[in-house]
Amino acid sequence: MNVHGKPTRTIWPHPSDPGIIQIIDQRALPHEWVVEDLASVADVATAIRDMHVRGAGLIGATVGFGMYLAAREVSDDVTGFLTRAGDLLKSTRPTAVNLAWAVDRQLRAIAEHPGDPVATALRTAIEIADEDADACRRIGEHGLALIEKIAASKNGAPVEILTHCNAGWLAFVDFGSATAPIYAAHDRGIPVHVWVDETRPRSQGAKLTAWELGQHGVPHTLIADNTGGHLMQHGMVDLVIVGTDRTTRTGDVANKIGTYLKALAAHDNGVPFYVALPSSSFDWKMRDGLKEIPIEERGSEEVKFADGLCDGRRCEVLVAPASTPAANFGFDVTPARLVTGLISERGVCGATESEILALYPEQA
Amino acid sequence: MNVHGKPTRTIWPHPSDPGIIQIIDQRALPHEWVVEDLASVADVATAIRDMHVRGAGLIGATVGFGMYLAAREVSDDVTGFLTRAGDLLKSTRPTAVNLAWAVDRQLRAIAEHPGDPVATALRTAIEIADEDADACRRIGEHGLALIEKIAASKNGAPVEILTHCNAGWLAFVDFGSATAPIYAAHDRGIPVHVWVDETRPRSQGAKLTAWELGQHGVPHTLIADNTGGHLMQHGMVDLVIVGTDRTTRTGDVANKIGTYLKALAAHDNGVPFYVALPSSSFDWKMRDGLKEIPIEERGSEEVKFADGLCDGRRCEVLVAPASTPAANFGFDVTPARLVTGLISERGVCGATESEILALYPEQA
Repeated sequence: MNVHGKPTRTIWPHPSDPGIIQIIDQRALPHEWVVEDLASVADVATAIRDMHVRGAGLIGATVGFGMYLAAREVSDDVTGFLTRAGDLLKSTRPTAVNLAWAVDRQLRAIAEHPGDPVATALRTAIEIADEDADACRRIGEHGLALIEKIAASKNGAPVEILTHCNAGWLAFVDFGSATAPIYAAHDRGIPVHVWVDETRPRSQGAKLTAWELGQHGVPHTLIADNTGGHLMQHGMVDLVIVGTDRTTRTGDVANKIGTYLKALAAHDNGVPFYVALPSSSFDWKMRDGLKEIPIEERGSEEVKFADGLCDGRRCEVLVAPASTPAANFGFDVTPARLVTGLISERGVCGATESEILALYPEQA
Repeated sequence: MNVHGKPTRTIWPHPSDPGIIQIIDQRALPHEWVVEDLASVADVATAIRDMHVRGAGLIGATVGFGMYLAAREVSDDVTGFLTRAGDLLKSTRPTAVNLAWAVDRQLRAIAEHPGDPVATALRTAIEIADEDADACRRIGEHGLALIEKIAASKNGAPVEILTHCNAGWLAFVDFGSATAPIYAAHDRGIPVHVWVDETRPRSQGAKLTAWELGQHGVPHTLIADNTGGHLMQHGMVDLVIVGTDRTTRTGDVANKIGTYLKALAAHDNGVPFYVALPSSSFDWKMRDGLKEIPIEERGSEEVKFADGLCDGRRCEVLVAPASTPAANFGFDVTPARLVTGLISERGVCGATESEILALYPEQA
């Protein structure tokens, strides 16, 4: 999507140095634009663990390129080295299923073409990234139909969409999942307005979603995470669209902590609640999201501090008393019963095993 | 309650200067302890509007003392001047019903004793403050019974209580409403642990509730507002207790924005959801909280910025892009159907008009 008016992706091979993958260091957004060079699988692991990159699709794509960098590092025991590199990458963050999915896809591809692991890994990494962007573009087309239907009843008033966290193009390679229908509608001249949950503690909504919607010219309003229920009670939200880090075959949705609360409010107020996801975010092995999906716990400093610009330079502020203990669960699970539907690159379906499998018969 | 080990209230007449009322400037907490002198009704209006003081009971008590300062300023046209002073104070914040309640109580008291408005207003202000503290103390006793009952089934494990915003002693004159049962239980040796919602955008949970619980030695953990649903899904919350800025005669509860989301999660997970309030927080004229209770909108800077300590000094950080629009609704309304019960100084009752009126037959 556009940055300073120029189409941009979140990850790309260095244009002249084959040993370098470039990413946007998203920790610096929205205040600075920092492009970072990744030169080793260790760099990639750090970038994922410390959230220079984040978001289901982008984690998958970054892992894809991480396996390529690993393939460049290996001299002997290719399989052993790449398996260990994959284990390192899998250990960086527990909740997003795209991570293991991309590692395993690379290991399979390299095993099938043992002659030239580097070329195979690069080709596969580029495939993963391109497929991610293409899946998101198609999610946009399918979701667009939902927005058009609501727009038809609004007499030209904007379709009011609430989203949580950043499931925007910054969380993928391009377009985003939750944002893809929004960008598609906006680009076609359908008036939309997005309520952006700030998404504490890391404020991905305030920092990333607000920034990317602003860069692309989509009207939006930032709100505290506490606000969505009030808006829905007063008819100010037509539709909720969020992303997911892992969705079970039964339609339980792990997503950024707080998503469940918005799903409850949507359900209580009859607001449609959709989850947008590329197929790579399904976990076909899991049936009970609450019991089975691992929920990442992160450091308490993220809760006690906020960061941003202070007198023109980036800084952190301690909000709470220094001695206060804090807990930081990164995700929660929204049970399928609260999900109106799933939007994948294959189409829209209800959040039940039978409807999901109707779109994915090969997983039955 | 205790500050640095010493029992403290939130507001008091200056010990030697009858023209001064003293408050804690709560904007500086938890990082600095600032006692502020209020010398005029204009000072009081500013302190309430700009949230040097906040919270249902404390707003009522501050308004009580504000009317006393107004009575000291008046020379002729006592009734007209005090009515205008009352209108000024009523205009400072729209949602808390204690504000108008305290103004009207002062105007009635002064009208009944026209001979010495200053002495009457001081006596009434002290009565309002003392009654608030006493009501909170009794809320603590009634709520304690609920906590004891849960503790009996926990085999010595702490009773896990979640609260939102600050309905602590800092929001009243002493003890607090939501915190009164917690302090009562803790002081009697019943193990409790409090999950403290940080309560964006102003972070009263992180700044005030965490601080006052820490000062009094009550075990607690700070969490992002997004977290409570996840905790309740996993059986980590036994009880939710919140305060209220205005509760209708039918049991609809206006409280800090986000309360409704926690009530939905409690309902979805079978967790009891209680609202603690002194009688002064009932609005006996209202029957439909969603339609009738005015919801304050505050400045967008509160959403875009966070404030705290940066390199040892107080500062503000811009979290979102500078140009991002933001909306800031201060409160939401939790419908009575989601409220397990109300805890007032008269006892515990269900959130229905008939049960409320059984405790308050004079309002029938």
